[in-house]
Amino acid sequence: MRLSRYFMPTLREAPADAQIVSHRLMLRAGLIRQEAAGIYAWLPLGLKVLKKIEQVVREEMNRAGAVEILMPTLQLADLWRESGRYDDYGEEMLRIKDRHERDLLYGPTAEEVVTDIFRSYVKSYKDLPMNLYNIQWKFRDERRPRFGVMRGREFLMKDAYSFDIDEAAARRSYNRMFLAYLNVYARLGLKAIPVKADPGPIGGDMSHEFMILAETGESEVFAHRDLVEMGAPGPDIDWFGDLEAEVSRRTSLYAASDEMHDAARFEAMPEGKRMTARGIEVGHIFYFGEKYSAPMGAKVTGPDGKDVNVQMGSYGVGVSRLAGAIIEASHDDAGIIWPASVAPFGAAVLNLRVGDAGCDEVCEQAYRALTDAGIDPLYDDRDDRPGAKFAATDLVGIPWQLIVGPKGVADGVVELKRRATGERQSLPLDAALKAIVNG
Amino acid sequence: MRLSRYFMPTLREAPADAQIVSHRLMLRAGLIRQEAAGIYAWLPLGLKVLKKIEQVVREEMNRAGAVEILMPTLQLADLWRESGRYDDYGEEMLRIKDRHERDLLYGPTAEEVVTDIFRSYVKSYKDLPMNLYNIQWKFRDERRPRFGVMRGREFLMKDAYSFDIDEAAARRSYNRMFLAYLNVYARLGLKAIPVKADPGPIGGDMSHEFMILAETGESEVFAHRDLVEMGAPGPDIDWFGDLEAEVSRRTSLYAASDEMHDAARFEAMPEGKRMTARGIEVGHIFYFGEKYSAPMGAKVTGPDGKDVNVQMGSYGVGVSRLAGAIIEASHDDAGIIWPASVAPFGAAVLNLRVGDAGCDEVCEQAYRALTDAGIDPLYDDRDDRPGAKFAATDLVGIPWQLIVGPKGVADGVVELKRRATGERQSLPLDAALKAIVNG
Repeated sequence: MRLSRYFMPTLREAPADAQIVSHRLMLRAGLIRQEAAGIYAWLPLGLKVLKKIEQVVREEMNRAGAVEILMPTLQLADLWRESGRYDDYGEEMLRIKDRHERDLLYGPTAEEVVTDIFRSYVKSYKDLPMNLYNIQWKFRDERRPRFGVMRGREFLMKDAYSFDIDEAAARRSYNRMFLAYLNVYARLGLKAIPVKADPGPIGGDMSHEFMILAETGESEVFAHRDLVEMGAPGPDIDWFGDLEAEVSRRTSLYAASDEMHDAARFEAMPEGKRMTARGIEVGHIFYFGEKYSAPMGAKVTGPDGKDVNVQMGSYGVGVSRLAGAIIEASHDDAGIIWPASVAPFGAAVLNLRVGDAGCDEVCEQAYRALTDAGIDPLYDDRDDRPGAKFAATDLVGIPWQLIVGPKGVADGVVELKRRATGERQSLPLDAALKAIVNG
Repeated sequence: MRLSRYFMPTLREAPADAQIVSHRLMLRAGLIRQEAAGIYAWLPLGLKVLKKIEQVVREEMNRAGAVEILMPTLQLADLWRESGRYDDYGEEMLRIKDRHERDLLYGPTAEEVVTDIFRSYVKSYKDLPMNLYNIQWKFRDERRPRFGVMRGREFLMKDAYSFDIDEAAARRSYNRMFLAYLNVYARLGLKAIPVKADPGPIGGDMSHEFMILAETGESEVFAHRDLVEMGAPGPDIDWFGDLEAEVSRRTSLYAASDEMHDAARFEAMPEGKRMTARGIEVGHIFYFGEKYSAPMGAKVTGPDGKDVNVQMGSYGVGVSRLAGAIIEASHDDAGIIWPASVAPFGAAVLNLRVGDAGCDEVCEQAYRALTDAGIDPLYDDRDDRPGAKFAATDLVGIPWQLIVGPKGVADGVVELKRRATGERQSLPLDAALKAIVNG
C-alpha cells in the first residue's frame, strides 16, 4: 500500500481522557476513533489488525473441530424469556423495540440463540459432539465504558458453544477448547496462563479464565513458574483423541488471579517456582451443563432411545479486546510493537527523499519485491520530513523498516531496522529484502 | 470438511411462507435460519458463501483504490441531527435509547459517520481523492420484511464513500466504482447491467443501479444488447488513469429498469439490439455533492488556500442480498448451482458405502488430494442412503461431485458429476481429481 493513497491519521497527542497505554496508542496510531462512549470505528490500520486476530482465532477454532456460524446482532427478547435471563440481565442489556413494538435486544452473548438453533435441527446423539461458534459484534451497556476497546460497549467477540450427550463428553469438548485457546494466544505472541475461575452454581473444575501477562495488567496473577514456561500445545496434537493428560499437565499446577487466590497453596510451592505478575483477562471458558438446554428443551435421543438434555459449555474470547491487550503486552515509549502474526503490514518502506530519482527507484523496487513475496508492505511515499516518517512508523509498530535515503543509495545500501529491538544495519537492498522475507 | 463433523441441516421442505426460490433454497439447503422477521442466522454453508462474496467485493474495492474501515453498527442520533436526516428518516430507522437515555440508532447507512470521520482528520486537498468503505451489518426496519435475505431487516452491506475536491474529480472516483462494480458481478458469475437511476434533487448523470439478470427478477429491464454482451472491464485497466472512455462505452448504450424506462428511445433502437429481461437490483452508486459535507462542515483547503466543502458520492452493494440474488440467477429443480467463486466447498466426495474398506480408502485418498490442492472438499462420510446423499449434494450446489461406490471401486473408477450441467462420467480417480483441480 502506498501511504499517499492510504488513510493512516496518526496524532501527535492522545486525548486526555485516554487513561491506559493501549487506548492512547490506538488513538494516536490511527487504529480506532471513538464514535460514542464505548463505541469505536476501526480505521484502516486497526481493522487490518482486528481481521488478523479474528483469523487466528478462526483457524484455531476450526482446527479444534468447532464449526463457524454467524448469529445476528439483534435477538428476540422472547428467547431470553424462555431461559429466564431477560429479566435477570439488568441494565447492561440494550433493549430495543421495533416499529411493531416487538421486544428485541442487542445480543450481549448468544447462549439462547445457539441453543434455539441447536434444538431446531439436532435430534440425535449421533450428531454429537457439536461445537458452534461465531465471531460477531456484541453490545453490553457498561455504566462506565473506558480503556478504549478493552472495555467497550460494542465489541467483537468469538463465542463458541459445545453440545454433548453427557458430562464426560462435555469434558472432551472443554479440553479441546482449553488447548485451542492456548494456541490462539501463542500465535498472537502472548504469554497466557489459564487460571481457575468461579464455576458458579454448577460447581466443578471446568471453568477457566486466560490471563495474559502485561506489566500494565488490571489483575494480579499468581502461578507456578513451570506453567508459564510450558507454552502452548501446538497444532499437531490429536484433537479428537484423549487430551486429558495434555490439559492436566497444566491444570494441576497452581494458577490463580487475585479473586480466586489461595495464598497458603501458593506459598507451599518452592520459592523459585512462585511467580506473580500483572495480567489481563482475555478469555473465559466454562461448562454449564443443562442451564439452557433444560429450560429451553434442547434434547437429543441417546443410544438407549431416551431423550436427554444436552450438556453445554461456552467459550468466549474478546477479539477487539485482544487488539488492546496485545498493545498492553507489547509497546515501548515510541509506540506499538506488533507481533508479526497480527502486524497491519509486514514491513514499511521509508523514502527519505521523495522525488529523488535514486531513492524513488530503490523504493519502488523494494515495494514490488516485498509485495511479490507476500509481505504486504506499506510504502511511505509522502513528501514529508524524515523525522516525521520515523516517528509515525515507530508509532504504528510495523515489524520492519526499510529506510532509503540519498546517501545510502549513493553507497549502494539501505538501512534496515527491526522495530522490536531498534537494531539497525546498513546493507545492500537484496540482503535487506532477504532478511525481511526470512523473518 | 467431513460431513460427520459438520453442521449442514438440509430440509426436505421449505416453510410455506418462503415465497421466492432463493429463500426456499437457502432454508432447505441449511444456509440460513430465520431468528425474527427479516433477521437471519447464517449457518455454516451460508456463512462460507457470504464470506466469499464479501471477499470478492473487498478485493475489487481495494483494487479500485478504496480503503477499508469498519464503522460501528450503533450510531449517535446527534450526528443525524446535524445532517437533518434524524427526523426525516421515518420508521425504517431503528431508534434506541441506552441506559443513560442517550439517543442511538442502528445504522441503516453511514453517510453521517463517515463524513464525521473524514472531517476529523482530513484538512487538505492533498489527501484527496479518498474513498473509504466498510462491510458492516445494517438495519432497516422494513414494515414487511420478506423474500429471505433479499429484503431482510438486518443485512450486510458494503458501503463506500468518496471525497473529492471538485465535481470533475468526483466523476473520476465515480468512474472507478462504476467499473469496479462490474468486475464484482462478473467474478460472482452474474450478468449485470448498469441502468440510469434517479439522481434525486442533485440532478446530473452520476447515478446508476446495477441489475443482474434472473428469470425470477422483480423488475423489468430494457437494454441495448451490446451492453449485456460487453462484459466487465477486468482487473487490468489503469485505475488511476482516465476511465471516462471505458465508462462511456457503457453509459452511452440504452439501459433502464421499468421506473426510468423511455419506450420511445428503446424502440428507436434496431429491433435486434433490443433486449428485455427480468432483473434484480444489486447495487446503487451515486454522486450527491455537498449534501452531507455542507451541513456537517466537511471542508478541505484547496490549492488556492481557500476552504471548500468536499464533493461526495456513495456506492452500496448488498452483500447478504447478493447471496440470494446469485441463487435466483443460478439454480434448477434440484437446488442451487453455485459459481465456483463463491461455492461453499470446491467439490463433494460422496462415499456410497461407508464402512466398505475399498470405498473408504478411495474417499480418504480423494479427500486428502483435494484438500492438498486447495479445493476445500466436503466429504460425505455419513452412513446414509445414496439417494439422500445425491439429493443433499445437488441441493447445496457444490460444483463437483466425486461419487465413490463399491462397483466403481472394483472396476478402478469413480464417477464425476458436474453440478451445473448434470454431466457425469466414469473415470480413474487420478483423472477425476485432475478434472476438478483444472476446473
